[in-house]
Amino acid sequence: MRVVLIGTGNVATVLGRKISGAGHEVVQVYGRDTAHAKALAEHLQAAYTTNIEQLDSDAGIYIIAVADTAIPTVAAALKVKDKLVVHTAGSVSKEVLKASSSRYGIFYPLQSLRKEMQHLPDIPLLVDANNTDDLSLLQDFAGSVVAQVQIASDEQRLKLHVAAVVVSNFTNHLYALAEQYCKKEQADFRLLHPLIREVADRLQYISPQEAQTGPAIRNDTTTIQKHLELLESHGNIKDLYAWFTKSIQMQVRAASDEL
Amino acid sequence: MRVVLIGTGNVATVLGRKISGAGHEVVQVYGRDTAHAKALAEHLQAAYTTNIEQLDSDAGIYIIAVADTAIPTVAAALKVKDKLVVHTAGSVSKEVLKASSSRYGIFYPLQSLRKEMQHLPDIPLLVDANNTDDLSLLQDFAGSVVAQVQIASDEQRLKLHVAAVVVSNFTNHLYALAEQYCKKEQADFRLLHPLIREVADRLQYISPQEAQTGPAIRNDTTTIQKHLELLESHGNIKDLYAWFTKSIQMQVRAASDEL
Repeated sequence: MRVVLIGTGNVATVLGRKISGAGHEVVQVYGRDTAHAKALAEHLQAAYTTNIEQLDSDAGIYIIAVADTAIPTVAAALKVKDKLVVHTAGSVSKEVLKASSSRYGIFYPLQSLRKEMQHLPDIPLLVDANNTDDLSLLQDFAGSVVAQVQIASDEQRLKLHVAAVVVSNFTNHLYALAEQYCKKEQADFRLLHPLIREVADRLQYISPQEAQTGPAIRNDTTTIQKHLELLESHGNIKDLYAWFTKSIQMQVRAASDEL
Repeated sequence: MRVVLIGTGNVATVLGRKISGAGHEVVQVYGRDTAHAKALAEHLQAAYTTNIEQLDSDAGIYIIAVADTAIPTVAAALKVKDKLVVHTAGSVSKEVLKASSSRYGIFYPLQSLRKEMQHLPDIPLLVDANNTDDLSLLQDFAGSVVAQVQIASDEQRLKLHVAAVVVSNFTNHLYALAEQYCKKEQADFRLLHPLIREVADRLQYISPQEAQTGPAIRNDTTTIQKHLELLESHGNIKDLYAWFTKSIQMQVRAASDEL
């Protein structure tokens, strides 16, 4: 597949590497910033341009991988008539691409991507299109690039994006709060790395509800009390502790009500 | 080292496997339940007893790995005079072991352990003792069993336990809430597994504060608004979403105030 990549950020870079690693040809990279466009293009052995009107007119797919808020502007500037245009955003409707082409769709990586990644993680791709031929084409193309591909409508994609925010951004914020707490209390946050990895890895063979451990689910009020006292001078973590303890205990009750 | 293991649960089982795998001899397992004590003893090629008064009197270390609330009772029943007794709990003082022996300490695995684990994860061990000789002994012994060993007082251990609850129990609860949400909305939670693993693995080379991504830190109010609307019928996750969004944005401001 001949691919034009629009964007030079984290998503464009990682998808570009994956696509080109899968044997497809990234023919051109577009970016507003010359240095960024040139760097990514060189990395992918592609041409580059900073003028959206000078895009290669004969690619098989145009991938818009720019900030969510920039997609409408880019879509309005991009005119490729009957060529397939997709964007890579979780919470933006595919319909914004109507402005660019009669054929449009979605190529959404359900993963947190960073330019500097050495080893690329597994990247599930959610695809969608405004017609069945392009949906098949996108399924095949995505399937040649990654192992997991699913079709998802705008609404389904938005829902998975919300769930992704919860399990990645919020989880990462828990890590950040714990690290902050450790710094203040002169405890070594790195000692928690193996635990953090284990809790994530475990989901491969056990559901999170079954895997729940700790003072809250044991209803260990002595430990909970000790922890809350210790957190007296860490107001935000104390609130969080109380909220999670209650929510974990509510989930146990809800689960046992179902039995 | 000749080891007596008191307990037959997750911690006793995994530590027993690690200790015996490191070339030490687990000579005896104590458990209240005959079947459990026998099963673990057979697995470790040790003797077993259900009578705490019939413990081997000549072990180098007695490890109490029972539920936090049971430690005082077990410690009161265990009489080994001048032998080294340790417990494995994060939030229980070592001083409860005074009842058992003049020599006591801590052997606390900072990890979430499950009996059925095939592949044992890295297990940092926090050690402590009421005298310097036993502290050295425990450091050496722990160091022969796992790669990461640190000395931690009751207070330091309690603090790390709180941080562990945040990064493991609360994180796992986020996974559980997201899974529940996906079930209700007929989205495939398993699609999120690679993302979950990536966010955890990434801490090896980047701090969580630097790694923060998502609509909250981008201050992407359009997406945040869409997500909150979608969560209208999921009250608890909606509250959580609002709380985390605010907390992530507060952390950004606090960090930029420091510059």
